[in-house]
Amino acid sequence: MPSSPPTEAFPAHTPAASQVFVTVLCHGPLTRSDIGGRAGLSAAAVTKAVRPLIEAGYLVEDVGEETRPSLGRPANPVRVDGGRALFIGVKITGDEIIAVLTDLCCRIRVARHLPLTARDPGAVLTLASELVRELLAEADGFGAPVHGLGVAVSGDVDRAAGVVRYSPFLEWHDVPLAELLGMTTGLRVTVDNDVRALTVAEQWFGAGVGLSDFALVTVGAGIGCGLVVHGRVVSGAHGVAGEIGHVVIDPAGPPCHCGNRGCVEAIAADPAIVAAVRERTGVAVTDAAGALELAHRGDQGARDVYTRAGDAIGRAIGTVANLFGPERVIISGEGLAAYDLFAEQIRDAFAAAAFGTAAQCDLKTRPLPFDEWARGAAATAIQSFIRSEARH
Amino acid sequence: MPSSPPTEAFPAHTPAASQVFVTVLCHGPLTRSDIGGRAGLSAAAVTKAVRPLIEAGYLVEDVGEETRPSLGRPANPVRVDGGRALFIGVKITGDEIIAVLTDLCCRIRVARHLPLTARDPGAVLTLASELVRELLAEADGFGAPVHGLGVAVSGDVDRAAGVVRYSPFLEWHDVPLAELLGMTTGLRVTVDNDVRALTVAEQWFGAGVGLSDFALVTVGAGIGCGLVVHGRVVSGAHGVAGEIGHVVIDPAGPPCHCGNRGCVEAIAADPAIVAAVRERTGVAVTDAAGALELAHRGDQGARDVYTRAGDAIGRAIGTVANLFGPERVIISGEGLAAYDLFAEQIRDAFAAAAFGTAAQCDLKTRPLPFDEWARGAAATAIQSFIRSEARH
Ligand SMILES: [Zn+2]
Ligand SMILES: [Zn+2]
Repeated sequence: MPSSPPTEAFPAHTPAASQVFVTVLCHGPLTRSDIGGRAGLSAAAVTKAVRPLIEAGYLVEDVGEETRPSLGRPANPVRVDGGRALFIGVKITGDEIIAVLTDLCCRIRVARHLPLTARDPGAVLTLASELVRELLAEADGFGAPVHGLGVAVSGDVDRAAGVVRYSPFLEWHDVPLAELLGMTTGLRVTVDNDVRALTVAEQWFGAGVGLSDFALVTVGAGIGCGLVVHGRVVSGAHGVAGEIGHVVIDPAGPPCHCGNRGCVEAIAADPAIVAAVRERTGVAVTDAAGALELAHRGDQGARDVYTRAGDAIGRAIGTVANLFGPERVIISGEGLAAYDLFAEQIRDAFAAAAFGTAAQCDLKTRPLPFDEWARGAAATAIQSFIRSEARH
Repeated sequence: MPSSPPTEAFPAHTPAASQVFVTVLCHGPLTRSDIGGRAGLSAAAVTKAVRPLIEAGYLVEDVGEETRPSLGRPANPVRVDGGRALFIGVKITGDEIIAVLTDLCCRIRVARHLPLTARDPGAVLTLASELVRELLAEADGFGAPVHGLGVAVSGDVDRAAGVVRYSPFLEWHDVPLAELLGMTTGLRVTVDNDVRALTVAEQWFGAGVGLSDFALVTVGAGIGCGLVVHGRVVSGAHGVAGEIGHVVIDPAGPPCHCGNRGCVEAIAADPAIVAAVRERTGVAVTDAAGALELAHRGDQGARDVYTRAGDAIGRAIGTVANLFGPERVIISGEGLAAYDLFAEQIRDAFAAAAFGTAAQCDLKTRPLPFDEWARGAAATAIQSFIRSEARH
């Protein structure tokens, strides 16, 4: 059994206090009056919330050379001390486990990868626990406690229960992953859907900072979507949300694993692209890299497949924009490797599909390698740490 | 100039107080402890919020026969006194203006209709002002002040600015309707998109009560959608949201006024149905009633058109469910007159399009005649009255 790390309580005991902390985390350094302006709180409320966070070392006050260090001087900017606490994030794909050690500002300090040799829950649990123990050992060198573990898995994940309900890539059903990893690592564990976890990281630390409504669309082995509406990630009343992959683009299109035809995923996800390139060119490419290489060598058939994929992705983003009216859509995922081949089609199809002012939505590409997905998992652990302690 | 009604302030001076009032409005009668449970507030906070609302007559305490009337007895249920204040709601269609006088619980006391003879802003303003003045005269007989006017218009409406940016049916661009009607009626005016207004009425007083995530889909002259996510109506960062009408069902389908082909609206809205029935049957039907009659008489061609419309509506609802996972989708609008002809196709197509547990979403039909749309406009006025006073 690993030794349990200290279970220190986060000293924000009211919703206003945790809101103050998150505001500084996302936007800091900020003066107290800037915090109040952004969080819609009075100066007194900010001062009251900031004090215990400074005393516990989670916030620090930057004291300029010309100003004397007088604690509580309202004009001094306040920022999060990232080194005050550490978190571990784990992303489980069908082929490997990626784990990162981050600080409280979700900056990656150490990253580790291990290939998956088997996908059954027992094998994955063993490997993941091993990686987490390695990172816990590394954490000793940073002189700060590890306050949580986040795990990101694709599929239907019930974050509140800590259960992976169904993961197609792993072929898992109802795996109580939070409880199992809690036992093997001694850490508090947050399990979430991988796209939602990445959306949390973008919301707090990435291209979604400051936006109350945005979408993250991921392109690769599948086509995923995380939605932030009214400042919060959408989870869906029954656990399903952001299923952009099954927006039907063409009812006469190729069959999809969901039972319909012509879904975005059946046209634009890696396996669909590989199959279409093989069919179209007669070249026996076996993976996305092979299909991409053929297209980059100028094969017109392969290029047409990417054109069609870009058109499907752009139309689906148009549907998201028409329904929610986000300020921004962030496009990411390993499929961005082909971005030069379909960027124009994505933008053109989006512009054609967007209704009226929905077309003003900003499309932004962000290459986010798998380390970033593990960082997303760490972001959910940071979120749990800040929020659940705030409930006391 | 009409005389200005009294501009009484609503006595809920904090977010918690207005939350308490809305909780009782939607769910009452409730005991103070039930209010606290639903609103997540302490008994002390509820008691503090309830007192001035009772003193000002907005809330009343039900005193049972067996209990003595001891003010503040926590076990007595509290409810809104609907007769304490009145509101006027106006819905403007391309053909007529419907106006209702409601009480604070959004119950219709009086309803009036006037046909529109011209659609220019001046003509509509004159007619609407006339209707409002009639209702203000009626209101005198109820012995309560009229505290606001809500106006619902289809199209792109900026509620915060009170401006109709673009209304296709009326052919309006940038009409400052709230300011104009404020001058002619002396009332505080809230202008909103008609589907969003109806969504507010469903959220507070209808089939959306108690749900934090639901959608309202309206079928008729157009296909509209109001979304409530995390307990709030979605407005879109750029003013567009809920544009379900332009979800593309079939890229080889009929052309749509938006420039695409095969949108839901180009298949399932009244004008599309009428055109398809004419083309399919050779019968020169001129309106939705004519098309419906032909189908009800058993004409197979006309019935097929409704089947296709139901399929398109069901697929579009499936897309909404896949993207944000609502608990319920309410289907309404004047197009429900044909519900027997396409209900089965809506449900079948929804079930086929919904991904995984999104299929658990409850589909519910609600016939909401035009009076109800005007009531939706009154609901936005009630919302403005409660909320804006809460900002003091
Ligand atoms: Zn599919
Ligand atoms: Zn259209």
